[in-house]
Amino acid sequence: VDLLPSWRPGPARDAIGLFLESARSIPVAERVAYFDNDGTLWCERPSYPQLDFFLDELRRRASDDPSITDRPEFAALLGYDADAMADLGLERLAVALAGLFDGWDPEAFTAAVERFAEGFRHPRWGTPLDRLVYRPMLELMEALRAAEFTVGIVTGGGTEFVRAISNQLYGVAPELVVGTLIGYEFERRDGEPALRRSVELMGVANEGPAKVTAIQSQLGRCPLLAAGNSAGDAEMLEWATAGGLPGLALLLVHDDAEREYAYESRAASFDDDEPIGEKAERLGWVTVSMAKDWRTVFT
Amino acid sequence: VDLLPSWRPGPARDAIGLFLESARSIPVAERVAYFDNDGTLWCERPSYPQLDFFLDELRRRASDDPSITDRPEFAALLGYDADAMADLGLERLAVALAGLFDGWDPEAFTAAVERFAEGFRHPRWGTPLDRLVYRPMLELMEALRAAEFTVGIVTGGGTEFVRAISNQLYGVAPELVVGTLIGYEFERRDGEPALRRSVELMGVANEGPAKVTAIQSQLGRCPLLAAGNSAGDAEMLEWATAGGLPGLALLLVHDDAEREYAYESRAASFDDDEPIGEKAERLGWVTVSMAKDWRTVFT
Repeated sequence: VDLLPSWRPGPARDAIGLFLESARSIPVAERVAYFDNDGTLWCERPSYPQLDFFLDELRRRASDDPSITDRPEFAALLGYDADAMADLGLERLAVALAGLFDGWDPEAFTAAVERFAEGFRHPRWGTPLDRLVYRPMLELMEALRAAEFTVGIVTGGGTEFVRAISNQLYGVAPELVVGTLIGYEFERRDGEPALRRSVELMGVANEGPAKVTAIQSQLGRCPLLAAGNSAGDAEMLEWATAGGLPGLALLLVHDDAEREYAYESRAASFDDDEPIGEKAERLGWVTVSMAKDWRTVFT
Repeated sequence: VDLLPSWRPGPARDAIGLFLESARSIPVAERVAYFDNDGTLWCERPSYPQLDFFLDELRRRASDDPSITDRPEFAALLGYDADAMADLGLERLAVALAGLFDGWDPEAFTAAVERFAEGFRHPRWGTPLDRLVYRPMLELMEALRAAEFTVGIVTGGGTEFVRAISNQLYGVAPELVVGTLIGYEFERRDGEPALRRSVELMGVANEGPAKVTAIQSQLGRCPLLAAGNSAGDAEMLEWATAGGLPGLALLLVHDDAEREYAYESRAASFDDDEPIGEKAERLGWVTVSMAKDWRTVFT
């Protein structure tokens, strides 16, 4: 716990300390920890940074070519028209936004994310993106690495979006970031190989049970520790404690309106109807209260 | 080159030495090297070890239940009936073999591979699986890691098959192994989360252009060095030299019938008709001759 100065003494810090202690007797190859990103490693309010990124690009395009707002999805998004957005549905909105980058090179997309990350300021605090990262979680990642854990990110966000910032913000290499995957097409330009970003998802959005199958296919090891904050993380957290080893599931609760935000995570899990709070209690997950357990919130 | 004692002095070793030297001026985050597995890291003759694994399992099942040989794919495989195999086609044979593990847990599959790996003896030399690994390639992987490279495996073989042995044989963690992916289904058994192996491929076999798209979606970084030995590696090797950085493409040539095998790699690349030898010459790839460049072949 010396490595966790931003964690206040209490049951959450005790559970982490005990877990790190017990992990010493587990083979290094099985010391694996995965974190959700939005609302677990960084602040997701008032909006997901990735949505801000898409909206920034949409505004730029609309100022170059106002006719694109003829498209109802873009009109609804730019006009903050909640009713129209609800009518259109999240999927149509997401597909329209993904279409802004149709055909792009991976490098160009990464450069666009990096540009966005440099210019980002949080609407409430005016802070840059790297100040939206929760300091206690960074300390936990460091403590895990010190205990020879492999630390990865399993996010519902776009894989390339998170990879573009994961090394700088979290010290996590791209191959240890798994999110919602966009398909790529191989092509030749003047004979040279190239990749084109498509608008098609590979598989499904990386939420709920999809996080568990993605862990299997893309990372290959079951986590011994998993941390999340919403219903989309429930199956991954169960996965961490389902094996024979003493795994740890951490559920971060946003109950700190003063220093961050106070909001309930969506109630029901993806593959059953059990509310995530009840699941946490039934399965003995460790609940982390932002208000009570964290001395400092941000980096 | 002190780290490469199994490499004889010559153009291949010189090129590697120069590459390692020049990589010092490249940011660590871009130092990435990917190796093909079959015929690049280990011997693929007289048959792919993964095929031996499948046939072992098939023989075990047939001795428990001879009726499974009613299936023409299994009859052809067990009878080494080359005509029947050619008639049925590789895909039907592969699907039939994959079906042997339909519904298995990932852990059970990994355990089966580990059992196979322990019992394996090469038909010509009687050596175990870990003695089929090319010592010069292990040295190269170590030299790359010493130069702060991330080293991964991009294989046409099954992802889980290679992951089951990659840490022990090559020191490569599961998340750095990308191969042909089988789909998994999330399910609950007595309420507990579980994964079931399916017989459906996710996407396509990991060969040719698919290796480049898999590198993008699963690993996220373009290689600075890529090593392969067959047409299925051509696009990945091009990818290593396509960027603005001084990448290195290594093409291993099997020309050593005495110490290993002598055989031509299949001629044409997947996405164009250029034979791989011509491609190597045109693009300035470094050809590695097993007979001339390697002092020692096996570990």
